[in-house]
Amino acid sequence: MKKIKILKIKNNKKEPVQDLVTEEISLTITISRKEITTLLCSPDNINDLVTGYLFSSGIIDDISEIRKISLDKKKWIASVVLKNNDIITDLVFKKLQPPGCGKGMMLYNLSGNKNLKKISTDLKIKAGTILKFMIELRKMSKTYIKTGGTHSAVIADRENIIVFREDIGRHNAVDKVIGSRLLNHDSLQDKILITSGRISSEIFLKAYRCGIPFIVSKSAPTDEAVKQCGKAGITLVGFARGTRMNIYSGEERIQ
Amino acid sequence: MKKIKILKIKNNKKEPVQDLVTEEISLTITISRKEITTLLCSPDNINDLVTGYLFSSGIIDDISEIRKISLDKKKWIASVVLKNNDIITDLVFKKLQPPGCGKGMMLYNLSGNKNLKKISTDLKIKAGTILKFMIELRKMSKTYIKTGGTHSAVIADRENIIVFREDIGRHNAVDKVIGSRLLNHDSLQDKILITSGRISSEIFLKAYRCGIPFIVSKSAPTDEAVKQCGKAGITLVGFARGTRMNIYSGEERIQ
Repeated sequence: MKKIKILKIKNNKKEPVQDLVTEEISLTITISRKEITTLLCSPDNINDLVTGYLFSSGIIDDISEIRKISLDKKKWIASVVLKNNDIITDLVFKKLQPPGCGKGMMLYNLSGNKNLKKISTDLKIKAGTILKFMIELRKMSKTYIKTGGTHSAVIADRENIIVFREDIGRHNAVDKVIGSRLLNHDSLQDKILITSGRISSEIFLKAYRCGIPFIVSKSAPTDEAVKQCGKAGITLVGFARGTRMNIYSGEERIQ
Repeated sequence: MKKIKILKIKNNKKEPVQDLVTEEISLTITISRKEITTLLCSPDNINDLVTGYLFSSGIIDDISEIRKISLDKKKWIASVVLKNNDIITDLVFKKLQPPGCGKGMMLYNLSGNKNLKKISTDLKIKAGTILKFMIELRKMSKTYIKTGGTHSAVIADRENIIVFREDIGRHNAVDKVIGSRLLNHDSLQDKILITSGRISSEIFLKAYRCGIPFIVSKSAPTDEAVKQCGKAGITLVGFARGTRMNIYSGEERIQ
């Protein structure tokens, strides 16, 4: 967060005040010195972000494929070395590029996919636990509370929040929690992804790629996210706040 | 909007209800049959979106460069023909790709730019008019009111709202209002851009590229957006809602 001087207008009165704004950096990710993307993001937990991005955009299939991530905090360049250096072939590059906006090659490949593999799990969660998680998410969102400028994401099991991350981008916040669990060699197939952001097909795909069976959002889903979650057997809950929530798919997992 | 069946939980009671969700499509934009990007967006006002995107991402400098935009609504492909077909050279492609997420080549070129040209205008607006615009923006956001899943953007002059657009993406909503004005051969250099979304450097760049001297948001800016708006002489107002707003730069234009 950065402290800046602003002019506040309230009820027709102008007043100069100190205010906090959230920080934004432009992070370039390279693999074997080749630029693969530039993300606008918050300047914390960059290893989580890079790991989550590489996995959820389909560049790596397993955390063991990463040999090293080095971060240059002056230029904000995250240099990735993979075990198999040849992985970034021209074909991968070609697939990576067309769909901008964090979708990467995965959406490009999966969009229109009618044969999504069904995620199966015996995970069940109480509705009350979900609402308790939403209160905790809000309380943990320190940067949001002070600046209003970030999204939050959480990975939880059926009882507790395991990891929390904030970022100016809703995609990045999700990639950060996913990356954090991958770096901890934790399974995601019995976990819940909770986010403050809206659920579009991109967020569905990130969860699907990790085998996450349960997505909860404070906000709205799109029709495409509802459709895809239904096909993939992912429980999708939206507008989870206060004493209410909407269940769009997979209601059998909510007790 | 699509009508779907959901299960609503409220105060521990489960109830099946009909609900509306906002639509999401995956729109591929081609120039001379070469794919340049795929945007996740709402399926309305696609000509505005494509025009705004081409301009704000720096692919065209003037609306006259577009010969034709054809839309295939089955495959959601917008095929663009430019007057100068050679414009999509390999260099442009290379510049276009690295920074995903709607930033396109422009951010790539401008990021780190210390010599932004100052926007000059004698436009002045009353604080009360800004707050009145925010009420109108909210009322006009029909899809948001019904689904909670969209962002809204507006171009206004010092007295009236000229164009309103909604989209599932905040970048897209801004590109749509910009595109709409370009297609109407309207000047943007004496206009105000109003958005429901947060102001990151990408939104600043879209406004800067059009010469828009005034940005208003219902939400928060990032530190980078504040810095860049200050350098470029753009008035930046955030958290404009109810009877309050925060002025981050260019206060001399607010009466």
